Amino acid sequence: MRLLTFRAPDGRTLPGLIADPEAAETALTEALRAGDGPSAVLRVHPISATGVRNVGDLLQRENWRDLVSGPHVDTVDISARDLAPVIPRPGKILCTGLNYADHITEMGHELPDVPTLFAKFPDALTGPFDGVEVPADNSGALDFEGELAVVIGRDVPLGGAPDEVSATEAIAGYAVFDDFTMRDLQYRTAQWLQGKNLCSASGFGPWMTTGDAFDPGSATLVTRVNGVEKQRADTRELVFNPAALVRFITSFINLRPGDVIATGTSGGVGWARSPREMLTDGDTVTVEITGLGGISNRITVR
Amino acid sequence: MRLLTFRAPDGRTLPGLIADPEAAETALTEALRAGDGPSAVLRVHPISATGVRNVGDLLQRENWRDLVSGPHVDTVDISARDLAPVIPRPGKILCTGLNYADHITEMGHELPDVPTLFAKFPDALTGPFDGVEVPADNSGALDFEGELAVVIGRDVPLGGAPDEVSATEAIAGYAVFDDFTMRDLQYRTAQWLQGKNLCSASGFGPWMTTGDAFDPGSATLVTRVNGVEKQRADTRELVFNPAALVRFITSFINLRPGDVIATGTSGGVGWARSPREMLTDGDTVTVEITGLGGISNRITVR
Repeated sequence: MRLLTFRAPDGRTLPGLIADPEAAETALTEALRAGDGPSAVLRVHPISATGVRNVGDLLQRENWRDLVSGPHVDTVDISARDLAPVIPRPGKILCTGLNYADHITEMGHELPDVPTLFAKFPDALTGPFDGVEVPADNSGALDFEGELAVVIGRDVPLGGAPDEVSATEAIAGYAVFDDFTMRDLQYRTAQWLQGKNLCSASGFGPWMTTGDAFDPGSATLVTRVNGVEKQRADTRELVFNPAALVRFITSFINLRPGDVIATGTSGGVGWARSPREMLTDGDTVTVEITGLGGISNRITVR
Repeated sequence: MRLLTFRAPDGRTLPGLIADPEAAETALTEALRAGDGPSAVLRVHPISATGVRNVGDLLQRENWRDLVSGPHVDTVDISARDLAPVIPRPGKILCTGLNYADHITEMGHELPDVPTLFAKFPDALTGPFDGVEVPADNSGALDFEGELAVVIGRDVPLGGAPDEVSATEAIAGYAVFDDFTMRDLQYRTAQWLQGKNLCSASGFGPWMTTGDAFDPGSATLVTRVNGVEKQRADTRELVFNPAALVRFITSFINLRPGDVIATGTSGGVGWARSPREMLTDGDTVTVEITGLGGISNRITVR
């Protein structure tokens, strides 16, 4: 199943189920190849349930799989530009700092025993095809980080995912993420928060593919800037895979439905290139993962 | 005004206005001196507004001051043990790492040009008099950090608080905070998140005192463990005061009503003592700030 959150004409959001996943992926891939991801059109069954306005709300319901499975009374065509972040307001967004060997090396670190984790606030998220506005004052060192994101599907108390099976069962699905970064602000103190939380800048979507329909052990992640490939990685190269991250994280905190774990970026970020390649006004960052679709965000510096 | 969030008999929470602030502070101080903070009783006017279940919800309403000002049809006696975190689910909790000169020195750092900030998740909060349960596996280096917390009262867009006046106007009020820390987890990677987010461990309350009734430029913060004083600071010693923090933070992100800024702890934490003094099973941490009341959380290691 592919679940998404879209902006309805009344200004509110709604969750939806993609009617034909293969057709949706093809439409989106073709639009991205043509350099116009937002123009893709997706056939969607809106999901109606009282108080459920997005995929995050949906996952709060224990019977969310039943709510999604239909029967579906309605089908609508959604423009990709009307997609919201698939989980608009996660209770937690945990980002993994260094999790692909090549990126760890390029940033000058040694392979870790435990994952490095930091937080992103929900306000930092933006839709998968939204424009990103950056104030000129903060635009000195803008960078992309294409990532695989994990969405939690059930309550996991502290210590509640002690092995790979229970950790995998806690995962509702997967999506594409751009851990948008202001490198100068990231590094001006020892804690990275300041560089990781520009409002409405981290693309997240286009939809969530449920765990039964995606193998995080073998997917290709590609990040392009203005169509030029900058990052290419296989998720099998992750030092800590999604289940390992869930297991590790729940060794010291709890997780809840709708919480998000960004699994970290691979080599090739602009900051580590020689010479450095920072994003500027008009640049478009596209992140694609095989089986999960792609996101594409254009930057405007104001 | 003193606003609090209390647990009603139906299991949900409600916001309330303290009927007689002076009597409430006296009752609470006496209970804390007697080593039994949870036994204090507070006279409260419950605040009724559709969809408003806590002080965080209340601050989302632009007319929150009108909603609070009455007339009040009801007055109830609330036990301090029934207080919830004053803002139970802030959209953001920004913690300041090093902000009192003596604590900066004791932790081996130099005085900073910019504040160091990191995040706490809403799940880490607990009521001002709740017990804190710590798994034995994670109890190796538990520490207290008594702090002054700032609660935001309006939307502040990025760049929207460029001076002290606008920054001060963005503050709804102040409360007491314990930035509960697992030092071993804090330092096992370069990012502090892992040691700062034990679920239901960071006491926050007992109430929010509105900005017109509290001067953050001159208040005494005292932290005690089992009644023995461990930290004493004047908030005038803050390197970055509340308005400066709001101004700085909104130079790179937005703030919203109900967002929380913990302003950092002073010298005297257990980790920096010689020999180190880590919290153990049965210890009670009490944090008091003149004019804001106090919080008291007892630790159980399981």
